[in-house]
Amino acid sequence: MSASLKDVAKLAGVSVKTVSNVVNDYRYVSAATRARVRSAIDELGYQPNLTARHLRYGRSGIIGLALPELDIPYFAELAKAVIGVAEQQSWSVLIDQTDGRGDRERQTVSGPRAQTLDGLILSPLTLDASYLAGLREDLPLVLLGERVRPGTADHVVIDNVAAARDATRHLIALGRRRIAAIGDQHNSDAGTAEVRLRGYREALAEAGIAPDPALVLPAMSYHRPDGAEAMRRLLTLPEPPDAVFCFNDLLALGALRTLLSSGVRVPQDVALAGIDDIQDGRFSTPTLTTIAPDKEQIAEAAVTMLLERVNGYVGPPRELVAGHRLVARESTVGRG
Amino acid sequence: MSASLKDVAKLAGVSVKTVSNVVNDYRYVSAATRARVRSAIDELGYQPNLTARHLRYGRSGIIGLALPELDIPYFAELAKAVIGVAEQQSWSVLIDQTDGRGDRERQTVSGPRAQTLDGLILSPLTLDASYLAGLREDLPLVLLGERVRPGTADHVVIDNVAAARDATRHLIALGRRRIAAIGDQHNSDAGTAEVRLRGYREALAEAGIAPDPALVLPAMSYHRPDGAEAMRRLLTLPEPPDAVFCFNDLLALGALRTLLSSGVRVPQDVALAGIDDIQDGRFSTPTLTTIAPDKEQIAEAAVTMLLERVNGYVGPPRELVAGHRLVARESTVGRG
Repeated sequence: MSASLKDVAKLAGVSVKTVSNVVNDYRYVSAATRARVRSAIDELGYQPNLTARHLRYGRSGIIGLALPELDIPYFAELAKAVIGVAEQQSWSVLIDQTDGRGDRERQTVSGPRAQTLDGLILSPLTLDASYLAGLREDLPLVLLGERVRPGTADHVVIDNVAAARDATRHLIALGRRRIAAIGDQHNSDAGTAEVRLRGYREALAEAGIAPDPALVLPAMSYHRPDGAEAMRRLLTLPEPPDAVFCFNDLLALGALRTLLSSGVRVPQDVALAGIDDIQDGRFSTPTLTTIAPDKEQIAEAAVTMLLERVNGYVGPPRELVAGHRLVARESTVGRG
Repeated sequence: MSASLKDVAKLAGVSVKTVSNVVNDYRYVSAATRARVRSAIDELGYQPNLTARHLRYGRSGIIGLALPELDIPYFAELAKAVIGVAEQQSWSVLIDQTDGRGDRERQTVSGPRAQTLDGLILSPLTLDASYLAGLREDLPLVLLGERVRPGTADHVVIDNVAAARDATRHLIALGRRRIAAIGDQHNSDAGTAEVRLRGYREALAEAGIAPDPALVLPAMSYHRPDGAEAMRRLLTLPEPPDAVFCFNDLLALGALRTLLSSGVRVPQDVALAGIDDIQDGRFSTPTLTTIAPDKEQIAEAAVTMLLERVNGYVGPPRELVAGHRLVARESTVGRG
């Protein structure tokens, strides 16, 4: 139980430096070497002494990542990216699922959970700027997403208006004119739904397409059943849409199921696009056109900003707008 | 910031008891009442005083849930169920993603993370019984999955041999005879792959079907790309299969993509089944036949056993085998 770095290096037949690189997950170690070192680590039951290193500075070595819902694959994929980046810098991550509920989000930022963490990356759905501004100052905080006014804390976001505009422009460029949107949330005054709706409307306006309120459908949550149900309603319209832009990929995959099981051809009859670029949409049939936020960049920026704060950086809140790009797949452009 | 239960009750126009029921997420509160109470809670910024209650007993009120990969939807859905059950009993859950790596699993059970937890639910992929038996005795532990010998700790599992047998029997009952399996893992001596392979083989044997080693395909990991790749290899066989049983739903969804994009009809040419009953498979086209483990029962049993230990229960390790059932959908029985 008390194997050292040296023991591992000897068993694996590599240098101590290489073992350390594997332990810290640096990417330039070859897969074969990495496998050999990992197997030596497992055989000896070696445990990296991260604890001691962090304790020296009065830290737990743990950062928190609070996300609304892990069964939305976008958040699960983002969590994986954050864990990867944090591990490269010898930090571990504990994940807190808030379900987007106010009581849970408050517990996350000020309950006993927060006290065991050196810092927190939070994607808030209910907490507003004034609440967040009143938090204890010794908890470094990075915020993700739209529900944040500039200046509250370090903040990482994508340009969701542009993202929605890009998706809608793509549908317009394919010659579609009756373009529906699924994912409106009336009660959300400053959230994702609102900015994506704005981008959708801007794209219609710049193409001179009159907006039709009957084509904008709400979604209670952003899961497949919500998309499937909204699509059923769209298909009952006297003049159904020839394209649908969904505010995330799960909604689009739900809509896709309704379309296919109703005998509607995608993309010939209805073209379909989402946002998130989750793996699901790369394996659906047809594959799903989407907007891909740069999850690696988001994770990298969030962890870097947070650890800078943990390490004592003082300065005004910073904002990083991560990139996004359109990924055109079969659900809009067919099998090429 | 110091609103009381009474303030919330007054604003929502309900009794204090009702507010408490909502806070503790008891299910018999109507959706309308729940929404009214939640909105009052948010308006007043009320924070349930769970902390004080737990601190009285020297506890953090936090249990850990350590899972291999959150981007495998089965684990994300299980996490949601565990959080729901724990919350009903006023406990919060922090999630630790181990990636099934030995070093991370050891950190989880004996690093500083474990010290902040009152108990841990762990789904181990590498830690063996002797390692787990040597852990500090004051960390209540419940284990999930196959990599556990009886007697190590409280343990919740499904009968994976029976689950795989049921899936394979279903394919046989449909008249299929060349039944492939995707998900073998040679290096896993006592894991999920091994028990599912055994169930598959038992079903073939009892039907008098000679096993064909060319039809058993490995998978490095249990994600869609692995299933897609294995299916490509199966389609190059001189005599391809007429049915495929995948060791989880993600592999099956990857295989489905390969089949459909190769012009193979599902289920007419190849019938397809998985295990996990993730939401993805209810919305694919065709929908996916699967074995549904009773995730609610698993979550309920794991949390209950763990909290019993936290509350001082002493006794030999217990084992609970949760239920499972076959869910026949379009990928085997067509559109009915």
